[in-house]
Amino acid sequence: MKRLEEKILTDGIAVDENILKVDSFINHQVDPVLMDEIGEELAGHFKDRGITKVATIESSGIAPALTCAKALGVPMVILKKQPSKTLNSDLYQTIVTSYTKGTSYELTLSSKFVGADDHVLIIDDFLANGEAATGALRLIRKSHATIAGVGVVIEKAFQPGREKLETQGIEVYALARIARMAAGVIEFAE
Amino acid sequence: MKRLEEKILTDGIAVDENILKVDSFINHQVDPVLMDEIGEELAGHFKDRGITKVATIESSGIAPALTCAKALGVPMVILKKQPSKTLNSDLYQTIVTSYTKGTSYELTLSSKFVGADDHVLIIDDFLANGEAATGALRLIRKSHATIAGVGVVIEKAFQPGREKLETQGIEVYALARIARMAAGVIEFAE
Repeated sequence: MKRLEEKILTDGIAVDENILKVDSFINHQVDPVLMDEIGEELAGHFKDRGITKVATIESSGIAPALTCAKALGVPMVILKKQPSKTLNSDLYQTIVTSYTKGTSYELTLSSKFVGADDHVLIIDDFLANGEAATGALRLIRKSHATIAGVGVVIEKAFQPGREKLETQGIEVYALARIARMAAGVIEFAE
Repeated sequence: MKRLEEKILTDGIAVDENILKVDSFINHQVDPVLMDEIGEELAGHFKDRGITKVATIESSGIAPALTCAKALGVPMVILKKQPSKTLNSDLYQTIVTSYTKGTSYELTLSSKFVGADDHVLIIDDFLANGEAATGALRLIRKSHATIAGVGVVIEKAFQPGREKLETQGIEVYALARIARMAAGVIEFAE
């Protein structure tokens, strides 16, 4: 997505070879017009696939998931992070461990909102190691729904997230794919 | 807002005199079309006031804040919850204590995104005791920005949130004001 790549080049900050700050337009301050375009672009790619729900992980995926869900004409479902393990028969639950951050959290989904008849598109802001997306997949599979794919705003293509998802047969679509970074340098994949 | 009140009556669940579940269309599953209407309604009330930013608290205020910011033509800023206290000279920080939940968290805002020239509208999904909104106000005042008001989707009008904010001179606008609840019963204020 050309306009997103341009915005990343002008307003994104490559801190080092791993850290990209896009907090001025994606995940702390959010540009609502760009977010609408992002949602439409993601929806355009996945349209005509019978998607019934767009799911995202709390909280920086909410904005692109909302605009994508609106463009697809389906509800958005927020997979909730919970700090503590609360047993509840109406909830699907899974533990997501971030090896990079050294933290783990419980991801939950009410059984009321995703079920066997659903075909779910997962949307997130970033794909890097694929830990969050894999947790989301695991959670949605517990509901016996099928997965339409994973759509992300920015992919760190030099990290193994895409490979982890594709080896499970999941299609990954990213609006901007970063091949390499260094302090002050951002290079997109062809 | 008539359509919101109708949706609360048909799809909301009053568990007891305090707990209202709207997780099928506001904060777990989200209805993107209703959320657009909510954003437009909030923006319509606060338009022509010179608002430069819409701020919300992570995470269930993000959807209505995004649609309101889009309707006002300004950026949205997410006040971030952080579990641990990390000192950072570029961040405004405040502790928000929820006496009802018995928890506290740190709310943070980068000094890059709100400053003395800004006139900020705070948007959230619920107003009840006003603890979160008061924390958001305190944080935004640290940036020397001015406050345009607080807009919420649902107000529990039988709780003291509105009074706490209005005694500080803050205008509060709620799309649905609940006067009384009991198990299975929801009554709106006139």
